[in-house]
Amino acid sequence: MSRLDAYRDSFPNARLTRSKAGVLEVVLHTDGSTLIFNGHTHEQFVDLFHAIGSDPENRVVILTGSGDAFMETINPDGFEFFTPRGYDKIYREGKKVLMNILDIEVLLIAAVNGPVRLHSEYVLLADIVLASPSTVFQDRPHFEFGIVPGDGVHLLWQEVIGSVRGRYFILTRQELDAQTAREWGAVNEIVPADKLLARAREIAEGLAKLPPLTTRYTRIALTQKLRRIIDEGVGYGLALEGISAADVARGNQI
Amino acid sequence: MSRLDAYRDSFPNARLTRSKAGVLEVVLHTDGSTLIFNGHTHEQFVDLFHAIGSDPENRVVILTGSGDAFMETINPDGFEFFTPRGYDKIYREGKKVLMNILDIEVLLIAAVNGPVRLHSEYVLLADIVLASPSTVFQDRPHFEFGIVPGDGVHLLWQEVIGSVRGRYFILTRQELDAQTAREWGAVNEIVPADKLLARAREIAEGLAKLPPLTTRYTRIALTQKLRRIIDEGVGYGLALEGISAADVARGNQI
Amino acid sequence: MSRLDAYRDSFPNARLTRSKAGVLEVVLHTDGSTLIFNGHTHEQFVDLFHAIGSDPENRVVILTGSGDAFMETINPDGFEFFTPRGYDKIYREGKKVLMNILDIEVLLIAAVNGPVRLHSEYVLLADIVLASPSTVFQDRPHFEFGIVPGDGVHLLWQEVIGSVRGRYFILTRQELDAQTAREWGAVNEIVPADKLLARAREIAEGLAKLPPLTTRYTRIALTQKLRRIIDEGVGYGLALEGISAADVARGNQI
Amino acid sequence: MSRLDAYRDSFPNARLTRSKAGVLEVVLHTDGSTLIFNGHTHEQFVDLFHAIGSDPENRVVILTGSGDAFMETINPDGFEFFTPRGYDKIYREGKKVLMNILDIEVLLIAAVNGPVRLHSEYVLLADIVLASPSTVFQDRPHFEFGIVPGDGVHLLWQEVIGSVRGRYFILTRQELDAQTAREWGAVNEIVPADKLLARAREIAEGLAKLPPLTTRYTRIALTQKLRRIIDEGVGYGLALEGISAADVARGNQI
Amino acid sequence: MSRLDAYRDSFPNARLTRSKAGVLEVVLHTDGSTLIFNGHTHEQFVDLFHAIGSDPENRVVILTGSGDAFMETINPDGFEFFTPRGYDKIYREGKKVLMNILDIEVLLIAAVNGPVRLHSEYVLLADIVLASPSTVFQDRPHFEFGIVPGDGVHLLWQEVIGSVRGRYFILTRQELDAQTAREWGAVNEIVPADKLLARAREIAEGLAKLPPLTTRYTRIALTQKLRRIIDEGVGYGLALEGISAADVARGNQI
Amino acid sequence: MSRLDAYRDSFPNARLTRSKAGVLEVVLHTDGSTLIFNGHTHEQFVDLFHAIGSDPENRVVILTGSGDAFMETINPDGFEFFTPRGYDKIYREGKKVLMNILDIEVLLIAAVNGPVRLHSEYVLLADIVLASPSTVFQDRPHFEFGIVPGDGVHLLWQEVIGSVRGRYFILTRQELDAQTAREWGAVNEIVPADKLLARAREIAEGLAKLPPLTTRYTRIALTQKLRRIIDEGVGYGLALEGISAADVARGNQI
Repeated sequence: MSRLDAYRDSFPNARLTRSKAGVLEVVLHTDGSTLIFNGHTHEQFVDLFHAIGSDPENRVVILTGSGDAFMETINPDGFEFFTPRGYDKIYREGKKVLMNILDIEVLLIAAVNGPVRLHSEYVLLADIVLASPSTVFQDRPHFEFGIVPGDGVHLLWQEVIGSVRGRYFILTRQELDAQTAREWGAVNEIVPADKLLARAREIAEGLAKLPPLTTRYTRIALTQKLRRIIDEGVGYGLALEGISAADVARGNQI
Repeated sequence: MSRLDAYRDSFPNARLTRSKAGVLEVVLHTDGSTLIFNGHTHEQFVDLFHAIGSDPENRVVILTGSGDAFMETINPDGFEFFTPRGYDKIYREGKKVLMNILDIEVLLIAAVNGPVRLHSEYVLLADIVLASPSTVFQDRPHFEFGIVPGDGVHLLWQEVIGSVRGRYFILTRQELDAQTAREWGAVNEIVPADKLLARAREIAEGLAKLPPLTTRYTRIALTQKLRRIIDEGVGYGLALEGISAADVARGNQI
Repeated sequence: MSRLDAYRDSFPNARLTRSKAGVLEVVLHTDGSTLIFNGHTHEQFVDLFHAIGSDPENRVVILTGSGDAFMETINPDGFEFFTPRGYDKIYREGKKVLMNILDIEVLLIAAVNGPVRLHSEYVLLADIVLASPSTVFQDRPHFEFGIVPGDGVHLLWQEVIGSVRGRYFILTRQELDAQTAREWGAVNEIVPADKLLARAREIAEGLAKLPPLTTRYTRIALTQKLRRIIDEGVGYGLALEGISAADVARGNQI
Repeated sequence: MSRLDAYRDSFPNARLTRSKAGVLEVVLHTDGSTLIFNGHTHEQFVDLFHAIGSDPENRVVILTGSGDAFMETINPDGFEFFTPRGYDKIYREGKKVLMNILDIEVLLIAAVNGPVRLHSEYVLLADIVLASPSTVFQDRPHFEFGIVPGDGVHLLWQEVIGSVRGRYFILTRQELDAQTAREWGAVNEIVPADKLLARAREIAEGLAKLPPLTTRYTRIALTQKLRRIIDEGVGYGLALEGISAADVARGNQI
Repeated sequence: MSRLDAYRDSFPNARLTRSKAGVLEVVLHTDGSTLIFNGHTHEQFVDLFHAIGSDPENRVVILTGSGDAFMETINPDGFEFFTPRGYDKIYREGKKVLMNILDIEVLLIAAVNGPVRLHSEYVLLADIVLASPSTVFQDRPHFEFGIVPGDGVHLLWQEVIGSVRGRYFILTRQELDAQTAREWGAVNEIVPADKLLARAREIAEGLAKLPPLTTRYTRIALTQKLRRIIDEGVGYGLALEGISAADVARGNQI
Repeated sequence: MSRLDAYRDSFPNARLTRSKAGVLEVVLHTDGSTLIFNGHTHEQFVDLFHAIGSDPENRVVILTGSGDAFMETINPDGFEFFTPRGYDKIYREGKKVLMNILDIEVLLIAAVNGPVRLHSEYVLLADIVLASPSTVFQDRPHFEFGIVPGDGVHLLWQEVIGSVRGRYFILTRQELDAQTAREWGAVNEIVPADKLLARAREIAEGLAKLPPLTTRYTRIALTQKLRRIIDEGVGYGLALEGISAADVARGNQI
């Protein structure tokens, strides 16, 4: 029995399968269709990425979505944004989830199967980003709700596409299509939707042929800077986001 | 009476107006035409940006120039580059002016109305950069005078367009036209000159609709890294620039 | 007698000549043809760059290769990768060589005359990168040997072409042609092979006309961040590479 | 007329006098007696330290208190801790006041005339700390109000007396007498109360004999690390403090 | 049923009890007596601290030992120091365990009941350190085995007792008695052995009276710097330690 | 023939001997008596420490002085402080000498045989500091000449004895006797003058019994933070010192 058996069925919003060579596929979903993000998935993904990172039998990880989009809808269910105690849970999970992705010390491939309109920072923490032609990146919900985009998108987009581009992307809720994202360095390959997973598996199986310490330590060496960025900036960003949410809750908009 | 009344007329080289929603326009100029940068404006801008940053009634700031260029001429008037005491004033103001721009804790939009051949780092500290088609970026005066370009351009161009591109830009006094600057991530939109301000206002008024804490804290979250870059590197860069100026003053060129 | 006389003939794999204005040309080679990198050149280049950096008569440095490639073949001769003591020499030299390049406190121009399939990080530490049309960048030997690419390529490619692009480049052993490298910011100019050195000299002689403190201090100011990246990340990267090599030596591949 | 004339009388809670040599004495007070800290002084001191730091005629600064204590009482007047907008003012001023102390780029001597039970971080930003025998350091109000001590005391006490000592000091509301503070490195000299100012002046006048650039640049060189500590940690600390205050306001104590 | 029920009995070497107010006591032991550290406890403690940090019902944590010592004996059982794959487990757990201690985002009190001759860095990550008179700190096993002390002691002792003292402590295997440790800032209070836990509980129950967000965010604010120290230095230190162990394994001692 | 033969006699102000076990003793002197520091030794020591650090046969290094003092007199001979070009040599060497000490990647013991009134930062970079009872630390020449103490003393004294103590030490030209230095953590042991070297040798020979990779990597792990402090702060400090020297040269003292 593999370790995977112990957590394979623990996550209602992630379907897990692993190849013989150790390539773990993580398919985010809601009832088999495109994931609807809510407070419960926010909590669940902290544990999901922790479980994946704790299992030494995973050799390479592929992260993908279901249906037509990677993630584009948020549902308030399970979130309590507007009290300090309620927000504390979001703050704590929001910090943890990104460090837990970085604590997956094997190479991580994002196979982006369509629009990503929230938590696009998950994708940018992957080492390789493949995208279908229909992929669009955007940070939409923060400003729709009138709150600070402080969960990591404020740091990672600047890091990946540049300081001036990254700030504009956030501030104008810019829609970045796959082609532009590739030209700006956020996507490595655009792959037709029906070949996306196959291409991800091809790369993953190739990497899984390398000695295991080599792939693990390469991930560590390649993400050292990202760890510092996340550790130094996400807690503060989320704290500011929380204060802005409390302000919104008081109905103090102009 | 608004706070703006207290400083609106304090700056002979900056015309200030503010919309009902709190969008402050800052138009740099010399007698209504393109700004001629000199030692007096160097000092004045320290106070200008401090005043803007200290006024909580500013909700978004637009920074633009006058006439055909944003800034392209420097005049030695008011500068004393060649003695330690004279240079000390430049060093002190040079450090302060950039931190004061970052201390403007509301979103900042640069509307670049033409060539920027000095102090282009002001533009790169803006969160959104719009440029007219005639815009050209260059760092010209430092090497013309034979001194180190240590006032922040040496840091921010590398940060915005990349390490190898940024160093080449400085070292070869490269002229970067608007189109290339956009491709390289230093400009977000190219807008016809006669629509430039209108477009800046459109974005600014949109941002001003967000709750005030949200826009303020978003600026803070987005510029955390820039603060560190400026704080760690501009003082040293200016000190080296000062020594090189003292050397030039002694007539020791090859 | 110039200082150059003291070290000009000390390096069997580097031909050194200096113009009247102080432009030093460093041509890497093996018996006059393309350099074959091995354990002896690894050691030799530590001293080579130290010598260059210690000579105040060098005003600008041009680094180039011989024959059809800059560097594409590695030979195990003189390397002992698979014991801790043997690897210690590689670890020590690997850290030193990059700091010694950065301790060359005059402007450095890379004239890349063809493929660079190993130690491409040398090129990225140059302030200006010119490349012939036949230039290709790749990091090949690490994964061919099954070891961690921890010698600096894991840091500098992310720094120069972006975080997601840089990781993909390393992980997929991507071949980056000159044109793409230019579009992504790793190359400044593509120059026909027969004009490459002439163009490098033209730029170098221009820079050498600046006052000497100015060029020196500009190099220091422009590379402050690179020093920190190298100092913080190369030792760790090389240590991980060494452990992975020891693992390979035990035949523990999958 | 000196520049001091322009701001000498602007601060109801600070009496300013300057010696012929340029030693500025800043005596904090409330109606001539020991300062009672409140929301108005919080705002006022931001401007006070900015004014002092902007006046190049100040050569050395002495900071002291009035009556039996340096600062030990806080009054809620002028503070609005419990709404996001109200707290925003505290957050903004709290960050600014410490950077403005560090922007006083001349040597700063604290002459601590008695207990300091709040904002002891002001003292630790001084370059020289003299204390009367009755001096006691404590961080009392934060935990009395049930809120996070995030205004800088959480950073600077660890920096000055050590990591384990500093955390204990904050957490147990430890009273540190002058003697222990001297043994632990937070106080340089214990001086009888009636000789405290004289001793501060003696040191200050001595320092004022040094060339002005020397004292200014020595302050800059000596406080480079403190700037980074403040810039990196105070904003975040204050944001967390604000959230905890909002929680307290909701009456959610255990 | 509390969350504690889910993990209380999962750790054979840690006895867990929690007071009504939420003060969790963690008593390290081997069969009820002083802990004998081995490869199994190394692995177990990673999970132990993770479980503690993941349980929001813990309000304050007390960490103590059993019998006459906190930890002084190491047993090779379960460790495989001398192959890359074997060491990889140590490397991975060694990094995780310290971050997991820091991820306990409630205040942490160490009640050191006697000698600590290994993993003294656990103690230094506590916010308050109480020690019995018989406590002695030493880093013994690393140099006894002839390997690099790279697991965090090399960083934290310098941080807590100073750079020159900390390096001497490691290099000479210095025995630091409780009194000296208190004088040097590594211990806050020396408490008779039979009153040690009572004193720890007294402080802990006092802290548990503060609002829960306040204690949590105070821990976060107070340990921000420690996180960076651990994140930047422990991975590298452990990698060097592993190489030195491989060298020892080859019998290459002088 | 050992490598030592190649450089043993290259340094007129350093007598080098090495024990069978590889303990290198470096005795600084001027004609066999206490070293008189001047511009020539400033240059010589850059090469001295480089040579020591480049010789893998050195296992442990002891650094000591001659006669009654370690270093207390400075002689202007060979220094040209007052022109940019002259100062450039000091700036370059001043940066290099400290990095070269840190590049001695074996354990370093300072045996301080008497007063150290300049360049005390050399001592603080040692891993173990032994001092004779007559030892006094002071930073005297900088303020005697009226220039900024920017050569590293401004950073390392704060690091070793604390922020407030370190700044006072520099600013008041405090004399720190051996006993106080030990209490404050700058000295590990006070040893009678006639037993000082014997004690240093005893510790050194003990360390030399450890496997060579272990001692080397321990030095690297223990000094990682010091490298960053030096790399980030000494260049800037020296640049400010140079400007202050140029100011003094113009006779602009008050």
